Amino acid sequence: MAKPDKFAIGVDLGGTNIKIGIVSEKGKLVKSVSVKTEADSGPKKVIANIIKGVEVILEKNKFKIQGIGIGCPGVVSTKKGIVESAPNLPGWKNVKLGPIIKNKFAYKVHLENDANAAAIGELIFGAGKKIDSFVMVTLGTGVGGGIVFNKKIFRGEFGAAGEIGHISIDVNGPKCNCGSTGCIEAYAGNSYLKEKIRSELKDYPDSKVWKMIENDLTKVSPRIIQAASEKKDNYANFVIERMGNQLGVALASLSNLLDISTFIIGGGVAGFGKPLLDSVRLTISARVLLPLRSRVLVIPAKLKNEAGIKGASSLVFYNN
Amino acid sequence: MAKPDKFAIGVDLGGTNIKIGIVSEKGKLVKSVSVKTEADSGPKKVIANIIKGVEVILEKNKFKIQGIGIGCPGVVSTKKGIVESAPNLPGWKNVKLGPIIKNKFAYKVHLENDANAAAIGELIFGAGKKIDSFVMVTLGTGVGGGIVFNKKIFRGEFGAAGEIGHISIDVNGPKCNCGSTGCIEAYAGNSYLKEKIRSELKDYPDSKVWKMIENDLTKVSPRIIQAASEKKDNYANFVIERMGNQLGVALASLSNLLDISTFIIGGGVAGFGKPLLDSVRLTISARVLLPLRSRVLVIPAKLKNEAGIKGASSLVFYNN
Repeated sequence: MAKPDKFAIGVDLGGTNIKIGIVSEKGKLVKSVSVKTEADSGPKKVIANIIKGVEVILEKNKFKIQGIGIGCPGVVSTKKGIVESAPNLPGWKNVKLGPIIKNKFAYKVHLENDANAAAIGELIFGAGKKIDSFVMVTLGTGVGGGIVFNKKIFRGEFGAAGEIGHISIDVNGPKCNCGSTGCIEAYAGNSYLKEKIRSELKDYPDSKVWKMIENDLTKVSPRIIQAASEKKDNYANFVIERMGNQLGVALASLSNLLDISTFIIGGGVAGFGKPLLDSVRLTISARVLLPLRSRVLVIPAKLKNEAGIKGASSLVFYNN
Repeated sequence: MAKPDKFAIGVDLGGTNIKIGIVSEKGKLVKSVSVKTEADSGPKKVIANIIKGVEVILEKNKFKIQGIGIGCPGVVSTKKGIVESAPNLPGWKNVKLGPIIKNKFAYKVHLENDANAAAIGELIFGAGKKIDSFVMVTLGTGVGGGIVFNKKIFRGEFGAAGEIGHISIDVNGPKCNCGSTGCIEAYAGNSYLKEKIRSELKDYPDSKVWKMIENDLTKVSPRIIQAASEKKDNYANFVIERMGNQLGVALASLSNLLDISTFIIGGGVAGFGKPLLDSVRLTISARVLLPLRSRVLVIPAKLKNEAGIKGASSLVFYNN
């Protein structure tokens, strides 16, 4: 097999860990490292940690590096390489992360919002390789999104487009941290979902979930629900189907608005797998306008555990 | 005053009437005519009526015509000039309206969905002249929309984008003709709104609306509500405020998704005026994500009664 000759460094800047890796232009992760973010210590410390991590990854480097891609939570200016704001990173306001990293390593640096980076990762390496237009949905702590139209990210006026987590599906629905109500994130976001399960599990005394959490509600997690669903637990299946339905309502509205009908579902909670995707599919198809109905396509993301690093590194190949 | 030397013919193809006019490149309507659509007689008859109308408007013509713009309900292929489907025009399936009109008159023909034509009308002649990105909302029989991003219509994959009337704001909301529930059109669309008012007006025996409709519920109309609101009728004000709130919920979701925060509100029901716009503004600002909040701009359309003809004619100047 011919060895691919182009590589990129991907930096996945998370609230807890910074994951850094070298990825080939075919999407193979050849080396990786994880360092603590230490977000509470502020931008300077975090940037020092990024630099430390990149230095480690570049030790004895034998790969032809084309550039560094950084996926970062919050609103970024991709042109200037500036993190304008990042709610989960205390003190980050207009931080010139891109230029700082560029000066340090003399590689071209590509900065992008992490949800958009995940979308570009699927576009370049994953399930979106042969698809011109799709919406990437990332189900994790929050519900993130990236809109790909004609192979390009749709950024909106100031680069903040793609917040599908804050499409409201019920004006009378649960309160969302953003200040609105009924946002899809207020149902499907990790903490909201766990809270909901904790509050209603007592109504399902026969659920296998009880045994799996050893009757300790603090142990409720999406992973437990997934495991219970795999054991055909009715309550777990109900939770997953309901979440698919909620997500489907939001995505049907999105589809009507944008005339985009392909959805790639990723992130940890996407581990719910086929039952989730089936429920999303069914709901979108039942609700979207007639001309779009036959085109609805809901598929799982291809980049799984390494989606963060690979998405970040894909920025280098996307921009080239 | 220098006479503008470029003109376009605008054809506003409606379900009941076809309105045709000559419009200057500055947006002045200099001549117009209206003919019956006779939609029930099928595409051939309708096209014959369009041709008849254009012939009338071209009699003794002394204006330098640059082309013909046609605004048409339904899904159109702007590139091919084909009406793919038009729910309110019986028998219209893949009708080559553009080429037919072009062959007849030897002018360049620009075909566009009517909601997009309204958006382009505001972009070229109206409230959007100095705005790069906005969403046009047309409140009438239905709730239509057109997304303008960087001075261009966002069409989506197959040209059907912009259906803001079918953003759902309440999964448990009223049934919409499209098959979904809680669509904004199922609240703000003319027939739904009238139906709602008819069903609840009895709970407001003191409303001035009763006198204005002469106690005859079949006389309920948006125009009556507008007139009652102008007389400070509490119920009429409540109806308008509620509608602004419902619309605002949908537009906040849209704003979060697209990072577009300017909305131009037009169509007959936009006659509700300031009370409606204030309510829309208030709701969007309360619900949209924080970084977008200060940028929210909700303004009335500039093209009023002649929006259809002007929007259609603007297509000629937009494409040039």
